[in-house]
Amino acid sequence: MNIMRRILLRVAYDGTEYCGFQVQPGKETVEGCLNAALTSLLGEKTEVIGASRTDSGVHALDSVVVFDTTARMPADKFSYAVNSYLPEDIRVVKSCEVSPDFHPRKRNSRKTYAYKIYCAPFSNPLLRKYSLFLYTKLDVRKMHEGAKHLIGEHDFKSFCSEGTQALTTVRTIYDASVTESINPDGSSMITLRITGNGFLYNMVRIIAGTLIEIGRGRKSPSDIDDILSACDRKCAGPTAEPQGLVLEKFVFDEPEE
Amino acid sequence: MNIMRRILLRVAYDGTEYCGFQVQPGKETVEGCLNAALTSLLGEKTEVIGASRTDSGVHALDSVVVFDTTARMPADKFSYAVNSYLPEDIRVVKSCEVSPDFHPRKRNSRKTYAYKIYCAPFSNPLLRKYSLFLYTKLDVRKMHEGAKHLIGEHDFKSFCSEGTQALTTVRTIYDASVTESINPDGSSMITLRITGNGFLYNMVRIIAGTLIEIGRGRKSPSDIDDILSACDRKCAGPTAEPQGLVLEKFVFDEPEE
Repeated sequence: MNIMRRILLRVAYDGTEYCGFQVQPGKETVEGCLNAALTSLLGEKTEVIGASRTDSGVHALDSVVVFDTTARMPADKFSYAVNSYLPEDIRVVKSCEVSPDFHPRKRNSRKTYAYKIYCAPFSNPLLRKYSLFLYTKLDVRKMHEGAKHLIGEHDFKSFCSEGTQALTTVRTIYDASVTESINPDGSSMITLRITGNGFLYNMVRIIAGTLIEIGRGRKSPSDIDDILSACDRKCAGPTAEPQGLVLEKFVFDEPEE
Repeated sequence: MNIMRRILLRVAYDGTEYCGFQVQPGKETVEGCLNAALTSLLGEKTEVIGASRTDSGVHALDSVVVFDTTARMPADKFSYAVNSYLPEDIRVVKSCEVSPDFHPRKRNSRKTYAYKIYCAPFSNPLLRKYSLFLYTKLDVRKMHEGAKHLIGEHDFKSFCSEGTQALTTVRTIYDASVTESINPDGSSMITLRITGNGFLYNMVRIIAGTLIEIGRGRKSPSDIDDILSACDRKCAGPTAEPQGLVLEKFVFDEPEE
């Protein structure tokens, strides 16, 4: 008798060429590619359950999915096997077996996203797909101060795009920081890094857009408190472009293996 | 009367989608794109003279070209104007006027190339177009020691692919180093950085391939001396893949403006 096992994959991808993570009919998506690769590898229709979604153009270094199979392959070998069926812009970087009832969206977890902003007089072609390019210099100290106001449990309704299916817009942010690395030519790479127990639709991109407004001096760091209290999307800044965003780390509160 | 002026452009490009820098009939090249953009902008057939060439897949942050025009635009505005006719993977980052007899290949210059190697158990989709991926850990200290043997004036015939049109294979290397930056997940980015007065066909990629052999323990740092003396391509290591290579800096001994 073949026993059904649940396998967890950690997946890195370049989102540039995909219409986001989630399967959509007739569109190239990361989830669609994973399903196709697993179906080819295992010889039977296989579908993953994803732990989180990303929008079109957003990247991931540590996206989590699970799937069920009766294949007897050692769990850690799935990563190599699946990769041989995937395009080179999607890589499984780890695989392990989890309990059959392990549901990645029903477990408590901490996700870390990074949003990168390249500030220079001209765009850098080598960075264009992995950062937002801005001519303007930003006040990074003020952005960092603004980010600190996000930490804690808050209703993030102001930082959520219309059309969310979330039951509640309350989330907890464990850490948020904005750092800058200045290059010899005077250009700089600014990184917003934010860790929370969950993120609403477009939440990190709206936070990035709002912190950029603070960096430009159009808003002050303490405005974040007022924007949170307002519970109104119109009070926050614009949604920053997708290509600067990367899902960097996904950690379950209770380890999966 | 319209006076003919010579304009110098510094150009950054992502070489992924191009068949190298130099114009080739029927192929997409960086030089071809620059010629087309200038011809559109200036309304008359315009061709650049390039200071150096790169192979298919090789990138540049500071490639230099000049062209002649009677257009009266302020010299520093050409960068913005040309960019509006270029694809986003090619950017002019600076423009200035030079003397009418300024020929970028006939001036003494120092070029700095960087070659990047990403060492990890799995390839990173976000780095795949801008680094060589290796499973193997490399001995970076030995690679650095090997690189030091390249410094000085040498005949680099062993580090030159067949089919070079160079009159002499003697070049001077001013500096060469290999450094490593280790990421929190244990993966590392190794950077070979090399500055010289000129580089032969595939020279940096063959140097990278040879230093990787040293990093793997298949050659020792002092073997570089024997390889140089041999003046025989077969004695050096393989030509490393193009996507790890970037022309980082191009400095004329006598400043162009």
